Amino acid sequence: MIRLAVDGMGGDNAPEQIVKGVLLALEKFDNLEILLYGDEKKMAPFLRNHNRLKVIHTDKYLDMGEKDPVGQLRKNKDASMFLAMRAVKEKEADAIVSAGPTQALVVASHMIIKRMPQMRRVAIAPIIPSITNKKRILLDSGANVDLKPEHLLDFAVYASVVAKSLLHIENPKVGLLNIGTEPGKGRELDVQTFELLSNTKEINFYGNVEPKEILDSEADILLSDGFTANIAMKTMEGTAKSLGKVLKKELTNSFFKKLIVGLFLRKSLKAFKQTLDPNEIGGAMIAGLQNIVVKAHGSSNAYAFYNGIRQAKELVEADVIGKVTKLLEKNEETV
Amino acid sequence: MIRLAVDGMGGDNAPEQIVKGVLLALEKFDNLEILLYGDEKKMAPFLRNHNRLKVIHTDKYLDMGEKDPVGQLRKNKDASMFLAMRAVKEKEADAIVSAGPTQALVVASHMIIKRMPQMRRVAIAPIIPSITNKKRILLDSGANVDLKPEHLLDFAVYASVVAKSLLHIENPKVGLLNIGTEPGKGRELDVQTFELLSNTKEINFYGNVEPKEILDSEADILLSDGFTANIAMKTMEGTAKSLGKVLKKELTNSFFKKLIVGLFLRKSLKAFKQTLDPNEIGGAMIAGLQNIVVKAHGSSNAYAFYNGIRQAKELVEADVIGKVTKLLEKNEETV
Repeated sequence: MIRLAVDGMGGDNAPEQIVKGVLLALEKFDNLEILLYGDEKKMAPFLRNHNRLKVIHTDKYLDMGEKDPVGQLRKNKDASMFLAMRAVKEKEADAIVSAGPTQALVVASHMIIKRMPQMRRVAIAPIIPSITNKKRILLDSGANVDLKPEHLLDFAVYASVVAKSLLHIENPKVGLLNIGTEPGKGRELDVQTFELLSNTKEINFYGNVEPKEILDSEADILLSDGFTANIAMKTMEGTAKSLGKVLKKELTNSFFKKLIVGLFLRKSLKAFKQTLDPNEIGGAMIAGLQNIVVKAHGSSNAYAFYNGIRQAKELVEADVIGKVTKLLEKNEETV
Repeated sequence: MIRLAVDGMGGDNAPEQIVKGVLLALEKFDNLEILLYGDEKKMAPFLRNHNRLKVIHTDKYLDMGEKDPVGQLRKNKDASMFLAMRAVKEKEADAIVSAGPTQALVVASHMIIKRMPQMRRVAIAPIIPSITNKKRILLDSGANVDLKPEHLLDFAVYASVVAKSLLHIENPKVGLLNIGTEPGKGRELDVQTFELLSNTKEINFYGNVEPKEILDSEADILLSDGFTANIAMKTMEGTAKSLGKVLKKELTNSFFKKLIVGLFLRKSLKAFKQTLDPNEIGGAMIAGLQNIVVKAHGSSNAYAFYNGIRQAKELVEADVIGKVTKLLEKNEETV
């Protein structure tokens, strides 16, 4: 049995979509138990009794715009996210899933669950969309603005285990996000990281990847520091959003076109939109902690949150943390 | 009369599209003379006599994939790009336009034309597309991977003059590309640059801009180091390309849909594609040199190259370099 702690009050659509996602997951998976932390009164309209669901009441939670997570950890100890996290720390649950504010989740994970001793930094690692069915892991997507090559190596090892266990890719290719494909391109960090990754047997280094290929590269893992990868992620988001607007305007600027769109193209346009919809993808891991922490997208609907739960469950089942620990220990011995 | 030196052999579609772009520009602008450097035999099929066009023959030119511009400058002195550039240095022409390899153009500009004494670095500054008619300047798009806040300030001043002179924006807003909008976000570089720009009267500082808004921000100028801005530019390119593919696939996967697209939507889809088509935009400036250098897109067609020529002509007419020199001298006095 896998037991997950869920923050019932995190996310723009909490608690309704969170509760619905939880019930969906319990239906789908027989080997899943959920501890749900949140305001019982607010969750009640959407809740059903379930023998593998336990609700733990708290009327405290974090605001989605929370800017001072450290202060909150001190003043707002009983917030749903923090209670769920402590349950994991105290081994009452195997992993936590929250759609709450990212920085709060990263900070609280650091302070409550703590880093694996073998990982020198913690990374945000979302699975990013693609134009085929191929999924890719992009990290660090925003936890650390300053990183060293050794940190990126840790991330590469972690993400390789996840790609193998969760995405079922036999020998996942690790690409370094860079401004050119040749070795020697980029900043000092990129040149040194290229060198280090080339000489590490634990991963399958693919080389530099230009962001022109960010949605259709052969690499399964895209690696950079938390500033650069965050810039790339937000640029994808912005470009997709803006092109969607152009397209919508172009396709609906006459009654006749509207009719055609309505009759024939609705499905096509939906597929286009879904390509970059975070709800289709699931959550981001906070990689490098002593337990699995999954951050579901802030705008998660029930299905997206269910995907986040599924992801946390699969990461626990695959013993990702155990496998990473072994690989990094081995790596330290050979260095 | 404005006199431009043009590299007739640079770009994927040289010399045909370059020569055609040159003739188009000469037709449009009465006050324009062009010195065209390139292989007379290869250009002949597309050339016409024109009293304001002078062709200077050379059978040497650079390969578009050129990786060793410094070596080329030594061994291949008479390459069309270098000859055109020397004409500018020797005051035979006011500015140069080339669609040749970017790094070669940047390196040759540095070594032949040289930096303005007031600018501490040289930046690549393309005008980027937008979903409205608003144009934006993104710099540095790839000349320098490591920059200091003072370099970014120089770039902000330069781009502000260009936005005023070329894009006719009265009081252009300078945005700092960053992972969050609040002051204090980003790397040490970004925090310090935010501080410096906030305290500089010569520019209108708008604050941080997240790349989620890269195509519809209120800022007229988007500023970052050459690594980050290049990553953002290539991510836009990659996302647009991939979404275009998805859309095409979705819209043409049945005969009936193909018919509809053919009959009614061709124009809409063309508008969508043009939104991010570099041919619609014109060239990138190499900002910070003693003369105007415009890099037309490598894949320029005649119309795109004509746009690059127009841009160079307008930058000369507006005396951008004179204005930037004055502003930076004033700024140095007040610092």
